[in-house]
Parts: sequence; C-alpha cells; structure tokens
Amino acid sequence: METLTVALGDRSYPIHVGQALLTQVDLLLPHLRQPKVALVSNVTVAPLYLAMLATALRDEGIAVAEVVLPDGEQYKNWQTLNSIFDVLLQQHCERATTLIALGGGVVGDIAGFAAACYQRGMPFIQVATTLLAQVDSSVGGKTAINHPLGKNMIGAFHQPRVVLSDVDTLRTLSDRELRAGLAEVIKYGLIRDLSFFQWLEANIDRLLAREPAALIEAVCRSCRNKAEVVIADEHEQGERALLNLGHTFGHAIETGMGYGTWLHGEAVAAGTLMAAQLSCQLGWLSSDDLWRVESLLQRAGLPLRAPAMDVEHYLALMQHDKKVRDGKLRLVLLRQIGAAVLTDEAPLSKIRQAIAVHLADA
Amino acid sequence: METLTVALGDRSYPIHVGQALLTQVDLLLPHLRQPKVALVSNVTVAPLYLAMLATALRDEGIAVAEVVLPDGEQYKNWQTLNSIFDVLLQQHCERATTLIALGGGVVGDIAGFAAACYQRGMPFIQVATTLLAQVDSSVGGKTAINHPLGKNMIGAFHQPRVVLSDVDTLRTLSDRELRAGLAEVIKYGLIRDLSFFQWLEANIDRLLAREPAALIEAVCRSCRNKAEVVIADEHEQGERALLNLGHTFGHAIETGMGYGTWLHGEAVAAGTLMAAQLSCQLGWLSSDDLWRVESLLQRAGLPLRAPAMDVEHYLALMQHDKKVRDGKLRLVLLRQIGAAVLTDEAPLSKIRQAIAVHLADA
Repeated sequence: METLTVALGDRSYPIHVGQALLTQVDLLLPHLRQPKVALVSNVTVAPLYLAMLATALRDEGIAVAEVVLPDGEQYKNWQTLNSIFDVLLQQHCERATTLIALGGGVVGDIAGFAAACYQRGMPFIQVATTLLAQVDSSVGGKTAINHPLGKNMIGAFHQPRVVLSDVDTLRTLSDRELRAGLAEVIKYGLIRDLSFFQWLEANIDRLLAREPAALIEAVCRSCRNKAEVVIADEHEQGERALLNLGHTFGHAIETGMGYGTWLHGEAVAAGTLMAAQLSCQLGWLSSDDLWRVESLLQRAGLPLRAPAMDVEHYLALMQHDKKVRDGKLRLVLLRQIGAAVLTDEAPLSKIRQAIAVHLADA
Repeated sequence: METLTVALGDRSYPIHVGQALLTQVDLLLPHLRQPKVALVSNVTVAPLYLAMLATALRDEGIAVAEVVLPDGEQYKNWQTLNSIFDVLLQQHCERATTLIALGGGVVGDIAGFAAACYQRGMPFIQVATTLLAQVDSSVGGKTAINHPLGKNMIGAFHQPRVVLSDVDTLRTLSDRELRAGLAEVIKYGLIRDLSFFQWLEANIDRLLAREPAALIEAVCRSCRNKAEVVIADEHEQGERALLNLGHTFGHAIETGMGYGTWLHGEAVAAGTLMAAQLSCQLGWLSSDDLWRVESLLQRAGLPLRAPAMDVEHYLALMQHDKKVRDGKLRLVLLRQIGAAVLTDEAPLSKIRQAIAVHLADA
C-alpha cells in the first residue's frame, strides 16, 4: 500500500492506494468522530462492494446507515441530493456522524456536497471505486451538483478526512469507464508532468490491461500531482484552474448533450484535443506535440471528435464556466506538453475554429 | 453611524449600524470584486427598499441583477433556493459577482446559502431590514434552508463581506415582526450580559416605540455580544451553541406547526421560557429570576405559551437538532440571568414537565 498526504494544515488527510483495502477498516476507524457512519453508494457499485464494507464496519461496532443512489451524471441533481438528506434525518445522523462515499466521481461529488451542507458540515470519507475518482475527483475537496444550465455550478469545497483507492475495484469497471478515467490521468502529464506523459506513452497498454502495479503507479502519480496543486491553491484562486484542461469544452459537451450521455472523461478527452488544437493555432504547441496528444488519447480508446452541436451553441454553453471573469472566457491551454497556462488571450475566431475542426460529422 | 468589526482574520468584516444607510453605497463599493451584484429580496421588502438601493448602485456604474423571493419561513426551501440559482445563471453572474441579501432573516439565510454554494462560493453582503436580522441572523455567517424534518438542517458557514443595519427600515416593520426580533435581543442579556438585560428592563418601551437611539443601542449591543461569541467559536464547536437558548424548543414549534405559522422569534420566546423553567426546576435559576424573564418577554409582547402539541411530539422533533450528540439531547440552559450553559444533564422527565407547563390550552 502506498500512502500520500494532502497537506492542508488542520484539514490534512492521507490517500491510501493499493489492493484489498476495502475490508481494511482500520484505515478508516481513526478518522471517525463517533461509532456511526452513513454509507452512500449507487445501484451499480452497491451490489459489488457495499455489503463488504458495511459488514467490516459493523464488525467493529460501527452503526451504518445505507443510502443507494441511482447511477449516472444525470442524477447529480437536487432530487438525488435531497434523497440523501431524507435518509440522514430519518436515521438520526448527527453533525459528528461521518458520511462515506463509496463509488465513482458522481457519488463522491454529490455525497461530498451532502456532507458539506448537512447540519452545515459533517465529516466525509471517500472510498473511490472508479479510475476517474481515484486519480482525480476523490482528492481535493471539490464537491458539487449540476444545474440544467451548467455542470458543477452548485457546490462547496469540503475536504475528506481520508481517501481509500483500492485498485482491485477497477477490475469490475467497464472498459468505457476505465478509458474515461485515463483522460484525467493523461491530463496531469499534459499540464505539469512531462515525464509522466512519457511514462504513459510507454505504459498505456498495461493500464488498459489493468495490471495492478501499473494502475497503482498511475493513481499515485496522478494524486501526487493533484495534491501539489491543491496544497498550493485550495480554493482555485489561480494555479488550481490548470487542472481544468479540456474541461470548459468538455462541460459544454456534457451539458449540451444532456448529463450522462457522454461520460465526464470522454468529454474531457475531446475537450483536451480542442484545447491542444487551439494551443497549436496560437503557435504555442508544436504540431508534433499535438500529434502526440492525439495519439495517446486514441490509444487510450478515447473519443477524438466532439458531438456535432452548433459552434455558437458550444460558445454559449462555455460562458457558464466558473473561470469566466468580467464576461471574458478564460481557457486552460498548453505552452508545451507538461506546461499549461490559464489565458483569456485566445481570439474568439480561433476558439470557433478549434471547436469546428474537432466536431464529428453531423 | 456606529461600526463594529467581526474579527475573523482574512474573513473579518464591518457591521455598520445607523440611520439613512440604505443609499450610502460608498459603504458597499469597497467590498465588491467586480462592478456587478445580484440583489436578492422578497415581495414585502422589495417594493419598499429595492429600487432605492438598486438605483444608488446603478448610479455608481454597478450592474444589478434582481431576484425577488416569496415572503415567509415556509419558502426557505430548495425550490426558492433553486430560483435564485436560475437567475444567477441566466444573468451570467460569476464567481466574483457579489450577492446582496436585502431583507430579514429568511432572505439572509437563503440568499447567504445560495452565495455559499454558487460556483462553490461567491462574495456576500447583508443589508438587514428587520430587527431579527439586524441583531442576530445577519452576523456570524450561518446560512441555511429548512428540511421538512428539521429547521436549518441544510446550510453552510459563509461570512458576509459587510453588514448594513439601517434602523430606519424598522419603521415599516409590523409590530409582530418587531416583537419577534426582541426575543433575540433579550436572549443576549440572558445568556451572557446581565447589564444589557437590566438595560432592556428599563428601555423595552422605548424599543417598542421604535426610538432610533434606543434601537441603535440595542442593535449594537446585540451585535457586539454576537461578534464576541462568533470570534471565539466560528464553527460552533462549543461556546457558539449558547446563542441557541430557546432554539431547540423553538425549532420544534416552528417545524411542528409548519414553517411560517409561528415567527422564528415568537417560537424562540416560548422556547426560552421553557428553557428558563427547566433551569429553575434543576435548581439553577431562582424563581425570582424566572419571573423576571417571563415578565420581560411579556412586556415585549411575545407569546409565553407554546402551541398545544403532544409532549412526545415535541421530544421527537427536538431530536433533529444540530446539538444532539451520540443520541443525547443537549440543551442551552441558564445558571442565572447572564450565564448560560450547554448541558445534557437535564433528565427527560424534567424536560417533559417544562414543556407541559408552558403549553397553551388545547
């Protein structure tokens, strides 16, 4: 087992990465404030892992309230959030009860937001069971639900007390979900870690084959990158925005197509290629490097073409982005592989062009 | 104009108390991060004061998006919260846009929670137009909405950038709302400020007559007390809970009767008397002091009898309280006038008795 620490003063927490962690509740127990938890999962993950974790906790004398949500980004909304609050209140969960999110990015985002708001804040633990959650969403304290007009528009910063990433749970992941997670892994290489990008070029097939050692390496290096950024800028006043490479384009895809149609990682992959294309048009990224980006995304089995929505519709959707300031779109672009920058310098004409080039045929 | 400061490090902010403050936008301008605000009010307050404030802001070149909510505690819910987010997104409000709450406690609580969650947190200003908001809810950063099973169960700590309390706005307040505000004023005397309690015994009629000088004095002394408590314990790990004298009983009244039937301050008054009664039964508060409490609440025109719900229903509702820990009810009680304590020592039998004594005839 590897352990990293996200050093945030009195909100610091460990990330444990390894195999067979799901029944090692001694990793969780020191972080509970009372012998009671609310365990939030979804209809896909619960049949696989909920009983295992709940039983291990109950064997230690912990009371467990269970909440099982529907599965999918389209349920990351008020209604689902409210259904969590209903159970928390019915089961007399208190301010000192810990909420444990067991699942992927959607479960973590919505359960984390529930924990941030319930009684103005209860402790929260992430047990991540998808690659996307293990490399990205479980770390850093961003929680949110979607609004019909914009993804992740309603949320809070609420750091977990501990993160468990058991790569054994990735065995049950669909190929599509595995590939979606790889989009966020590749992102770290692109924005700040050239040697990791090179490692991915050499090891992408081992990851697709789900070799545990390769998965642990990818999860750890991703989390180390993310932790460094979060420590430097917890509330996204600056550098943290760089983690959103491809996300402004990607969120437009997810919102425009209806949440859940494209997986988040798929939308990020297509969006990353748009951002790389734009960076190339601005004379920053070489066309060789653009080709390397495209090639790695393709080998990871990710979509290279975005859905054929009208370009103006893309731009309208992109205006509902948390990085917009004084009405100006700000995008994360690439100076080179391993070096991203947040900029409002890209002319609208070039943004339009970068989108148009990467649209699928209607 | 009097100015107090709530000293919370980089989240410190001033409270300005005085007359004719509503058009003094120079008090607000230094706190804006961009020349745009969302002004949230309700159907009662907006016709009186919204145009005045909006015009003063627009005259300074500030863009103003307006949101007018329905009036009443029964609207402090998801639906109303969502209607704020709808407008914020439609009007392209950004993370750097400031949300201004113009109104009483309900507007402040719900607008403050919207500001806490919108894009994971936008700046927030309170312009308080009721006595309850000026002396209590606008200060300290507690925001929330209600859940059918419990009042203020969903919320966040989100401090304002500045609070404006213009006592001129209290002229348009109904007598009922004015009296409800006095319940929270009296609370400060009871929990930690004997000399303020004595001042209130001597000056309650001036407050009921709405003398500006008396109102300013009462608002300032209340805010000073609240600020001291909040500075010592921003996130209610301990001392801050004392501000909830009468609130566990009171929340049960509000939830049990249906939000909006009893005003918050009315429920707090009846709940305070139950707490005082219980304190007397425990041998802490003298019967003379119990009489002084009852007498001052009565002179303030506040209800002394709680609605005739079943005592067991009271107890069930009181279990949904943020102060409950490990299943144990914790109540704020009085050692004497000016000295409150948080305790789980009161036996259930005595709690039942204190409730029963103060119920109205069915």
